[in-house]
Amino acid sequence: MDITKVRLDTPGCQDKLFFNSAGSSLPPASVTQTVVSYLKEEEQIGGYKLAALKADEIQQTYVELAKLVACKPHNIALAYNATDAYARAMSSIAFEAGDVILTTDDDYVSNQLAFLSLKKHYGVNISRVRCLASGDLDMNDFEEKIKSLRPKLVAVTHVPTNSGLVQDVVAVGKLCRQYDILYLVDACQSVGQLVLDVTEIGCDFLSATGRKFLRGPRGTGFLYISDKVLQSDMAPLYLDLRGSYWISEDQFKVMDNARRFELWEQPYALVLGMGEAARYANQVGMQEIEDHNQQLRQRLAEHFAAIPGIKRLDRGSHTCNIITFIKEGVEKEALCQHLDQHNVFYSTPSVTNARIDFGKKQVDWAIRISPHYFNTLEEMDRLGEIISSL
Amino acid sequence: MDITKVRLDTPGCQDKLFFNSAGSSLPPASVTQTVVSYLKEEEQIGGYKLAALKADEIQQTYVELAKLVACKPHNIALAYNATDAYARAMSSIAFEAGDVILTTDDDYVSNQLAFLSLKKHYGVNISRVRCLASGDLDMNDFEEKIKSLRPKLVAVTHVPTNSGLVQDVVAVGKLCRQYDILYLVDACQSVGQLVLDVTEIGCDFLSATGRKFLRGPRGTGFLYISDKVLQSDMAPLYLDLRGSYWISEDQFKVMDNARRFELWEQPYALVLGMGEAARYANQVGMQEIEDHNQQLRQRLAEHFAAIPGIKRLDRGSHTCNIITFIKEGVEKEALCQHLDQHNVFYSTPSVTNARIDFGKKQVDWAIRISPHYFNTLEEMDRLGEIISSL
Repeated sequence: MDITKVRLDTPGCQDKLFFNSAGSSLPPASVTQTVVSYLKEEEQIGGYKLAALKADEIQQTYVELAKLVACKPHNIALAYNATDAYARAMSSIAFEAGDVILTTDDDYVSNQLAFLSLKKHYGVNISRVRCLASGDLDMNDFEEKIKSLRPKLVAVTHVPTNSGLVQDVVAVGKLCRQYDILYLVDACQSVGQLVLDVTEIGCDFLSATGRKFLRGPRGTGFLYISDKVLQSDMAPLYLDLRGSYWISEDQFKVMDNARRFELWEQPYALVLGMGEAARYANQVGMQEIEDHNQQLRQRLAEHFAAIPGIKRLDRGSHTCNIITFIKEGVEKEALCQHLDQHNVFYSTPSVTNARIDFGKKQVDWAIRISPHYFNTLEEMDRLGEIISSL
Repeated sequence: MDITKVRLDTPGCQDKLFFNSAGSSLPPASVTQTVVSYLKEEEQIGGYKLAALKADEIQQTYVELAKLVACKPHNIALAYNATDAYARAMSSIAFEAGDVILTTDDDYVSNQLAFLSLKKHYGVNISRVRCLASGDLDMNDFEEKIKSLRPKLVAVTHVPTNSGLVQDVVAVGKLCRQYDILYLVDACQSVGQLVLDVTEIGCDFLSATGRKFLRGPRGTGFLYISDKVLQSDMAPLYLDLRGSYWISEDQFKVMDNARRFELWEQPYALVLGMGEAARYANQVGMQEIEDHNQQLRQRLAEHFAAIPGIKRLDRGSHTCNIITFIKEGVEKEALCQHLDQHNVFYSTPSVTNARIDFGKKQVDWAIRISPHYFNTLEEMDRLGEIISSL
């Protein structure tokens, strides 16, 4: 990976220590250029004419996204963000009272809220596999719960947003295949950060966002849908003329491919921006990105190990470039002020976003640092110095 | 209204005859500038930091949208498009088998598809008030059906997309208030074209898009939600941490205001673009826009009346700037080729988008012309000449 080129391609990375790719990352210049030039053309000829002229480029977005998760373009549906993609997948499942959703106790807040809403409206039961003290999923408990509860859906967040844990989605996938259970993976924080292969994971759905580690525009996301699902009659509850045909006054027919999960209206400027972000990531190489990222977090871990009072909150045998910590004896406000003064970009998840996980860790907040492949080892050293100097 | 200024503000209107504002209109330059400059700032500092810095401008979008439909900002929820807004509203209604959705036979295709999906999944019944021969709603039939069927929801499209009909949403609203029925209005084709007042309409929900007559960016929309709904516990089925709080492991609480109907992630560049489009429309004045538009369609009607073989498809005592027609004895392809050669921008709705309405009119397609206030009377004359010369 040519870090010099990557940094030259990233206008925002030069004058600050940007470590918030788990929030909304810095796009390559080509992403912004793609979006802006599309908008300027729309201004001239209107959105419908331009979309017709750009049909090939729009199709190429599906190709690049498919490459990113190792599937075919017909398995990819565009979405407005990861939560939207997740909801579309969920809404295709005919939940009834008593159905069980099996999830983990370290899952994304908005997914949990969707489960609780389904519980309220349909009487769905939510069961959570507890993590081991190590932070890893208790796979024995997982299999026991699958056997005893026969869940209608297993839903796992690949990388929980508030800790660096990487859940073993492949092991979960094996169980889901073995027991023939629908399997939904939230890859919001892993797409663009980790090599993803939906066949290896064995999922029926995988939801992702554009704006985080993929470095695409805000307001973009996508959903992978397995051939198995597409061969069934599962379809989102609210579909429109993008995903279905109006055959006669009281009949409709759903599309064969993943368009079934899309709405007709798309912000094509942003869609092409996400396509360019995927192309860029594919060109740099997801393995190269993963390798560079590993170096970054190892370097930061060395610094953290040497700074008294740093309490790392990330657990589990697999972690990634979401690094959460507090510094003992230092208030949130003082820590944030110090980081802000040194032009560090980060975020501060709170317990309201991570009730169960932060509850177990007995913290109300954390500092979250999420370096990405446009960051350098020198920037990790600098961050170590800054935190050490507090 | 200063038409010279309006045209100077509209870069795309100079070199073509643009009559597709019912598809995706031409934005004022200030809309594109707003979106582009936001994206360039995001490129520098990332999406989260910028959204925090721009909180006041983002709030101003709610203010301008509220002004456009005559409500308070706390009644406005952002959406990704009108169909998305419509689905969020629908999903807050706890439909059960046997519940009736009362609609019309000239309603937007994607709404019909949503109803049919609800019918399939929940056993909801769909009832349609037939239009009179004039095209107007049969209000006696409407009241009879409300009384006999006691619908859970009345859903009306203000301006059906494939004809110039303006449904009498105020009269329907009076009935809904009288019989205490939930009332959802699709204002996709009326927002930015007609003066709207949600109190006068008396609706519980009103959904709208940014890209059509409002002249905002693609991928934007909004939903008005009445105080009555907000005072109830109605909430969209799939909500997230934007619309609700995660109180404890198994409890959540919805927001008091219309944020309840939003998802957390928003494409803020586009949102501010929609805000600027609303500000621009409010500044020009919706009444002035309506008046100018009336002149445009009257002029075109005069030309059409003088051209042999023109068959207007628009019916009803109230019509607007969606003008659909065929020319007898002229095939679709020849008509389109002729219009294309003369640089006319228009659209061609097909029967698959208007099963019931086009079925009644015994057509498979139509030419749709949708002039807007940046168009001139001279352009209407020119269009008359072009169609006449075929």
